Amino acid sequence: MRLSRSFLPTLRDTPKEAEIVSHRLMLRAGLIRQQAAGIYSWLPLGKRVLANIERIVREEQDRAGAIEVLMPTLQSADLWRESGRYDDYGKEMLRIKDRHEREMLYGPTNEEMITDIFRSYVRSYKELPLNLYHIQWKFRDEVRPRFGVMRGREFLMKDAYSFDIDEAAARRSYNRMFVAYLRTFDRLGVKAIPMRADSGPIGGDATHEFIVLAATGESAVFLDKEALDAPVPGADTDFSGDLTPIVSAWTTKYAATEEMHDKSAFEAIPEDRRLEARGIEVGQVFYFGTKYSTPLGAKVSGPDGADHDVHMGSYGIGVSRLVAAVIEASHDDAGIIWPSSIAPYQVGLINLKAGDANTDAACDGLYQRLMNAGIEVLYDDVDGRAGAKFATMDLIGLPWQLIVGPKGLANGEVELKRRATGERETLTLDAAVNRLVAG
Amino acid sequence: MRLSRSFLPTLRDTPKEAEIVSHRLMLRAGLIRQQAAGIYSWLPLGKRVLANIERIVREEQDRAGAIEVLMPTLQSADLWRESGRYDDYGKEMLRIKDRHEREMLYGPTNEEMITDIFRSYVRSYKELPLNLYHIQWKFRDEVRPRFGVMRGREFLMKDAYSFDIDEAAARRSYNRMFVAYLRTFDRLGVKAIPMRADSGPIGGDATHEFIVLAATGESAVFLDKEALDAPVPGADTDFSGDLTPIVSAWTTKYAATEEMHDKSAFEAIPEDRRLEARGIEVGQVFYFGTKYSTPLGAKVSGPDGADHDVHMGSYGIGVSRLVAAVIEASHDDAGIIWPSSIAPYQVGLINLKAGDANTDAACDGLYQRLMNAGIEVLYDDVDGRAGAKFATMDLIGLPWQLIVGPKGLANGEVELKRRATGERETLTLDAAVNRLVAG
Repeated sequence: MRLSRSFLPTLRDTPKEAEIVSHRLMLRAGLIRQQAAGIYSWLPLGKRVLANIERIVREEQDRAGAIEVLMPTLQSADLWRESGRYDDYGKEMLRIKDRHEREMLYGPTNEEMITDIFRSYVRSYKELPLNLYHIQWKFRDEVRPRFGVMRGREFLMKDAYSFDIDEAAARRSYNRMFVAYLRTFDRLGVKAIPMRADSGPIGGDATHEFIVLAATGESAVFLDKEALDAPVPGADTDFSGDLTPIVSAWTTKYAATEEMHDKSAFEAIPEDRRLEARGIEVGQVFYFGTKYSTPLGAKVSGPDGADHDVHMGSYGIGVSRLVAAVIEASHDDAGIIWPSSIAPYQVGLINLKAGDANTDAACDGLYQRLMNAGIEVLYDDVDGRAGAKFATMDLIGLPWQLIVGPKGLANGEVELKRRATGERETLTLDAAVNRLVAG
Repeated sequence: MRLSRSFLPTLRDTPKEAEIVSHRLMLRAGLIRQQAAGIYSWLPLGKRVLANIERIVREEQDRAGAIEVLMPTLQSADLWRESGRYDDYGKEMLRIKDRHEREMLYGPTNEEMITDIFRSYVRSYKELPLNLYHIQWKFRDEVRPRFGVMRGREFLMKDAYSFDIDEAAARRSYNRMFVAYLRTFDRLGVKAIPMRADSGPIGGDATHEFIVLAATGESAVFLDKEALDAPVPGADTDFSGDLTPIVSAWTTKYAATEEMHDKSAFEAIPEDRRLEARGIEVGQVFYFGTKYSTPLGAKVSGPDGADHDVHMGSYGIGVSRLVAAVIEASHDDAGIIWPSSIAPYQVGLINLKAGDANTDAACDGLYQRLMNAGIEVLYDDVDGRAGAKFATMDLIGLPWQLIVGPKGLANGEVELKRRATGERETLTLDAAVNRLVAG
């Protein structure tokens, strides 16, 4: 994409309303624009990151055997009356009346609706296990939305729901999602640690939060350092096999958020392995048994011929929140440092003398060669000061900067900068292209 | 995808509430489930079709130089007061109050919000032309929602908005979208004809509707048959060039919906070229000048140094509606006939004797070979009657059926059926794979 034909409105000044670094950087880098309290538009660069995260989340859900559907944003109040949550949910639920005065709501989550879908179609244990997920906008009417998309009101979430014949099978479904989450967050370029958590309004007796470690995180976390070293399961993981060993490896070492913190258990860990850090919740997995299936009548006939209320779990990932969480975990004073897997573009190609025929030709050629190799390039082809161009590229945080000016070209050379480390190399044009193609 | 691990709830009986064929087939084939009046969940097969349509729409928007953003579903009422539409819009607008009693609405369209984004960042004519689009759920509170997703309340729409310094430039933007639409609908496998249209509540003086011809369409259309023969612009179309000849070729022959029909003009066409047909609106393009930029103060400095209200256009495609429109245009008594470009899978692989070791092995091998070749296969690996399997495959309408049974296998043969024509061929396994890989 040529900068001259794109829409990347970066801000020079730090917006006053932004209290945390990810919010400041998302506004400054032109990723989002606030439209109302806690409600944001995603500008082109932000939309690309969001789509990349969505793609990785989807791939790992599919790999783990979950099946994608798409439920609507608005729901009928009737379903929520069946589960008893319509009255329980409080003011965070956005309640709406349509033109016929029918009571509706903007879904904050989808346990009721997915259970309704399940009970409409599934009759036999032979159709289980079943795990349905969707990636859809949700709304929670936070009393004081803040921190940008970290605690917005309208937010994008992946939520999956598993259905099983009994608790043992449901624990296997839970483990599949647990392992999918380890892979997902690893691919997104963040270190996320599963921690025992409180089940909150979803209910249930087994639940883990996945917490991204970031110095600027919202909550304190307490860890055995060895919890950081468990290996991430590979792409060849057999999701039909026994995943208990993987889950155990990630859950036996001490790791807890502040609210679940057990001081004496923590202090039983050798002192040099105790880590107090900060983190951001980016996902949560729940097993909640028959909490929804019983009131909503979601049952299947079992091998014994009798009806059984299905055992359910739900599994959320905060897709839009992750954009902010990744930035909290990966930035410096100059701006964002995108992990390659979700960067809006891989390379920022900087023309230091736009308008100069030679420099333009060299840049146009590099742009074409990189695009032909399938590399996504943001090509700064506009006339401007070098310092401003460098600052903008650092701010938006693409993994590589390819810097092309008349001086270097006189020697047949360009400069390649790696954003994460600041390392710079002077290379021939061919060598630079080869380096970028190699990844 | 193995049928045994998927979730494809087809219905045997025709649902009584469905008045039109696409609605009936979408319910029977398990594409959608109604959650409330005019509000639907997309089940796995439907979600895949929707995603395919979205992808093609996105590719053609990008090709034409439009830039993707994503605006939220909920909007503040304040912006709509600035344009004057908050009071004008009537009961189709779903009005909402949040916990602080602030007035909001579920966006039925986004002219106001995109104009707000524009005015916040763009200052100079040098940043033009600019065309921003998004693909997002909208809500229109129809008094009597019906016909499934054809006239739903919550629906997925692609809407693009162009900004130009003057009318001449805005007409060029209009032409780019016009040509992108010709390409989009062609790739979706439908014949869509642009027709002069009424501008309705969006306003504006140039507008065309794109109408898919379908015998079961909602409205009568009147055509010069020669309007059907204009060539669809190719993938190599130069969107920075003059597109007037393409637009002229598609707009000079008579083509009008009932509401814009001019009987005497129609009767001036030689009788053998007059065509009365039925159609479904799937897209509309508008040029509306400064209707929104003036009240909202969206101006740029021009080459003359003075401020100019920008000239705008908007361009919609009904993404979710298209699923139904394609079915109206492409089905038979047995079910849906998906165009290859948007089919949920390309091939339905039918195991006629699931459980038989030989047949299972042959099917498993074919499944693996086709997947390795990048072909999307729905593999019916469940134990069931041949007749029911054929009926389900015909109903869900994948382009190809690959039928594998012990009798054919004894001769080293399988059967390949093309859904659109019903043609069947007996082939060796290798020949069948080669045929499918060739497309």
